[in-house]
Amino acid sequence: TTSTSMPAAFPQPVNRVSEIMKFGFPSLDQVRSFDNFVLSYDRRNRNAQWVFEHIKPEHVMKNENIKRGKSEFLEDNIIHNFFRATKNDFKNSGYDRGHLAAAANHRHTQKAMDQTFTLSNVSPQVGEGFNRDAWNDLEKYVRAKARQSRNVYCCTGPLYLPRRENDGKVYVKYEVIGKNNVAVPTHFFKVLLIENNQGQYELMPFVLPNQPLPKDVKLKKYLVPLESIERAAGFLLFDKIPRNNIKMISG
Amino acid sequence: TTSTSMPAAFPQPVNRVSEIMKFGFPSLDQVRSFDNFVLSYDRRNRNAQWVFEHIKPEHVMKNENIKRGKSEFLEDNIIHNFFRATKNDFKNSGYDRGHLAAAANHRHTQKAMDQTFTLSNVSPQVGEGFNRDAWNDLEKYVRAKARQSRNVYCCTGPLYLPRRENDGKVYVKYEVIGKNNVAVPTHFFKVLLIENNQGQYELMPFVLPNQPLPKDVKLKKYLVPLESIERAAGFLLFDKIPRNNIKMISG
Ligand SMILES: [Mg+2]
Ligand SMILES: [Mg+2]
Repeated sequence: TTSTSMPAAFPQPVNRVSEIMKFGFPSLDQVRSFDNFVLSYDRRNRNAQWVFEHIKPEHVMKNENIKRGKSEFLEDNIIHNFFRATKNDFKNSGYDRGHLAAAANHRHTQKAMDQTFTLSNVSPQVGEGFNRDAWNDLEKYVRAKARQSRNVYCCTGPLYLPRRENDGKVYVKYEVIGKNNVAVPTHFFKVLLIENNQGQYELMPFVLPNQPLPKDVKLKKYLVPLESIERAAGFLLFDKIPRNNIKMISG
Repeated sequence: TTSTSMPAAFPQPVNRVSEIMKFGFPSLDQVRSFDNFVLSYDRRNRNAQWVFEHIKPEHVMKNENIKRGKSEFLEDNIIHNFFRATKNDFKNSGYDRGHLAAAANHRHTQKAMDQTFTLSNVSPQVGEGFNRDAWNDLEKYVRAKARQSRNVYCCTGPLYLPRRENDGKVYVKYEVIGKNNVAVPTHFFKVLLIENNQGQYELMPFVLPNQPLPKDVKLKKYLVPLESIERAAGFLLFDKIPRNNIKMISG
């Protein structure tokens, strides 16, 4: 007689977007989902509004097969050409093409890393003293946290902060570069929600100015109240979690 | 014997939103529908992004019962208080509370007119020389067109236009007022799609700077190519209509 084997349990498809966005979408405008991060694109400023990552230890482990050198910056052809940042816009601008979702947070597949080089995940950042220094230190700190935690949720984005000028009035002012007027953010935020191995949550909201920063400043000097980021960015963050379930760490 | 009358034909409910938005939503972020206009709210700048009206002759006819004096400015409580413009923000700012959907385009019911006084339909506008003068002239022109046309679709919104400064770089710069940093747009656009009584379409895209404007300038001097508004605003307008079906009137 022939025996019929039971069908193997059908593997539940993982909806990666709902894992990454577990604690809510800050907004729903022009959402772009990649293999391992999700972003909302601001068509007026030709920058992301926010980029969301969910980082587990396996995403940040050293992996000999995945190489940053294989990745290339790519224009995001899903965005209408009226609103799309191009490689030419960055050329001779004096600014780095700064990742929002950091490439090294997506070391589990080459494709995931490659996707972080899409220009909708990129903002003009000051190179020396910022992208290559203080901001890079913050990214390394995120990975160190991710290696020792159960889950890290990370939301990153640009800010355009107002400043009082000599006439006593308050202005928002930022440079725009290239033919497509890609905005140069005045600041960047990064908000970490860390779930440790005991299942406790900690929230760390950082804001760094997009300028050369002194080398000897501790990252914790850039911690701010979450609300100040939310008010300036125009959306709420992690608002699905009851605030009294989180340990808020802020400046 | 009793006779049973046939049920009257069930009246088709009019979906006013889909009438107003017949030619497409420019974006889908924070959409607010009122009785006779629809808007998208920009939570970062505390201004609308766009306001859409569909104006028929009956909306702009003089109506003794509908009085502007009965309407009062109202904060929009649907907007989270982090992002809501308040009456206090405008106080002593030197700017008028300028309607985007003009009150006098909604003269068919008092409630429709009242709703135009919701602060999500209001932007800080220069009073003398602009809101009370050139911009008001444009609004009157829209009503004149509406009185003699089958349909007028009108999309109005703020712009934050870049300018080259003395250092050779290009900047976006705008004032923000009040505790909530309500943005003062550098310009406003108004795009009219006019369907005349023969069913032909004409499109008129205007941009006016938010400043005192000379009295003797003809409105047609403010006509611009539609694309320049779309690129600056970050959305497409009337993109559901094949462009070759419209007579484009632009500067
Ligand atoms: Mg970087
Ligand atoms: Mg007005």
